[in-house]
Amino acid sequence: MPCAVNKEMSRQQMQQDVLRCSSACFPLRSSTECGSETSAHPEKHEPADLSRMASIVSFYVCYLLCLCLSLACVVCVCVWNSHWRGGFAWDGSVLQFNWHPVLMVTGLLVLYGNAAVLYRVPLTWGQNKRPWKLLHAALMLLALVLSIVGLCAVFNFHNAVNTPNLYSLHSWIGIAATALFALQWVLGLAVFLLPCPPASLRALLKPVHVWMGGSILWLCIAACISGINEKLFFVLKGGAAEAYASLPAEALLGNCLGVLIVAFGLVVLKILSNQNWQRPPDSRSEDLVYTPVLQEENE
Amino acid sequence: MPCAVNKEMSRQQMQQDVLRCSSACFPLRSSTECGSETSAHPEKHEPADLSRMASIVSFYVCYLLCLCLSLACVVCVCVWNSHWRGGFAWDGSVLQFNWHPVLMVTGLLVLYGNAAVLYRVPLTWGQNKRPWKLLHAALMLLALVLSIVGLCAVFNFHNAVNTPNLYSLHSWIGIAATALFALQWVLGLAVFLLPCPPASLRALLKPVHVWMGGSILWLCIAACISGINEKLFFVLKGGAAEAYASLPAEALLGNCLGVLIVAFGLVVLKILSNQNWQRPPDSRSEDLVYTPVLQEENE
Repeated sequence: MPCAVNKEMSRQQMQQDVLRCSSACFPLRSSTECGSETSAHPEKHEPADLSRMASIVSFYVCYLLCLCLSLACVVCVCVWNSHWRGGFAWDGSVLQFNWHPVLMVTGLLVLYGNAAVLYRVPLTWGQNKRPWKLLHAALMLLALVLSIVGLCAVFNFHNAVNTPNLYSLHSWIGIAATALFALQWVLGLAVFLLPCPPASLRALLKPVHVWMGGSILWLCIAACISGINEKLFFVLKGGAAEAYASLPAEALLGNCLGVLIVAFGLVVLKILSNQNWQRPPDSRSEDLVYTPVLQEENE
Repeated sequence: MPCAVNKEMSRQQMQQDVLRCSSACFPLRSSTECGSETSAHPEKHEPADLSRMASIVSFYVCYLLCLCLSLACVVCVCVWNSHWRGGFAWDGSVLQFNWHPVLMVTGLLVLYGNAAVLYRVPLTWGQNKRPWKLLHAALMLLALVLSIVGLCAVFNFHNAVNTPNLYSLHSWIGIAATALFALQWVLGLAVFLLPCPPASLRALLKPVHVWMGGSILWLCIAACISGINEKLFFVLKGGAAEAYASLPAEALLGNCLGVLIVAFGLVVLKILSNQNWQRPPDSRSEDLVYTPVLQEENE
């Protein structure tokens, strides 16, 4: 009797959805705003309140970890390139190359990851989605600009020292990640911000947008890991004490940066994949039908 | 009125669940087995039939792509190491090292990914889950054994030529992936196959098991990409025609192997993340309560 079993499970799902609704109201609304069931049977919602509180607390623990890892990644890559690699310049020398890891880690990884989890922050749930949409798009645009400047840094350096561009596997994965990110941003703008596309197309493309976002993040991580590994082999090939294999301080810092990057990626993907932390549907009609920002502003 | 909106959406979800139930029956059961609703109103299910067919066809297209990419990855890594790197041996020479990429790509990536998507194949849905559980565990064990032999190959080679082990970022990520995989396998055996743990613990740990599985796959991919990149820089540093930067045939093959590995990972993660392709709950009571294999066998 699979259908009977599924119907029973669906009823339970329905009850859970009602509880999730009250959960969605938690951060910024009082319980009386959440319909008659909440006010009529407050005692029934005590376990749901506890579960909701636990979910929100565990989200903020995860989010705090995400922010700490973001800071650690940026500090590590900056210290590595300023202290061990001689600092920064924009003159075609190796000091110009040093902008490449800093801008790619800061833009394509840290800013990108933080912009991706923006909608999951419960504090934003009770508010109009419009400014958060714009902030998401603006942070992503800033991440894209930083990544492009980071690519320019390495292309200029290669051209100045007559080294070919885009031959290593690291460069292939990195350029694919940046190109897909640019495509994702343009499609995101066209589908979710501009007024032209129908709501059905937006609803169809939203899961694709989310999935592509996660995949691009993993491509960035693979590019970062291979890039750090390659750079450490390039620069640490002197005497026994300086060689990569003897794990001097710079090698340890570079390896730790790689581990922090992977940990950051895992935390961001954990936040994105947890269904309990997804922004619930708003009471506002524009959110239910995915009305794009420009259309909302015109109305 | 957010609760009212959510309740309406929950009712729609309930209807969708009933349709998903009939979808789950499709591959191996007749419609009459699927409860009274299906037989009472067959005409209402025509759109669901079409949607179900489209979902199954798109799954098999994706699965075929997954199998083709699996074959392409294994062929590429074998051809690279047998034709360009001199073949295989187990004598402490560089020919022993050549087993490392072959076994890691075959075990930790291709076998692992294929074992992970096993439950998603619709042909298995109408059948008893027990043999598929055992096949999943057996394939994962084989993948783990191949990975450990692949690690032994590189450790033996390093020891024979007095090179330190586990200093590069590639090795840190790779050893972390293998250690997490071993932990995941042991925990999977203890929680999902042995009879001791309560059903509540299994239900609690199942999403963690699935999420950890996906994360381990991405760690493997990052390790593979950094390893191929590092190997190509190590071996292609001769004259201009042979250098990595001039992209000789071996460099192209290695880079293409990296691209195939990333494509394989994206397809596997796409299959794992699509909710429509998840194995639906079985009518058999042992599947609904996650009865472990050994307990099922004892009953």
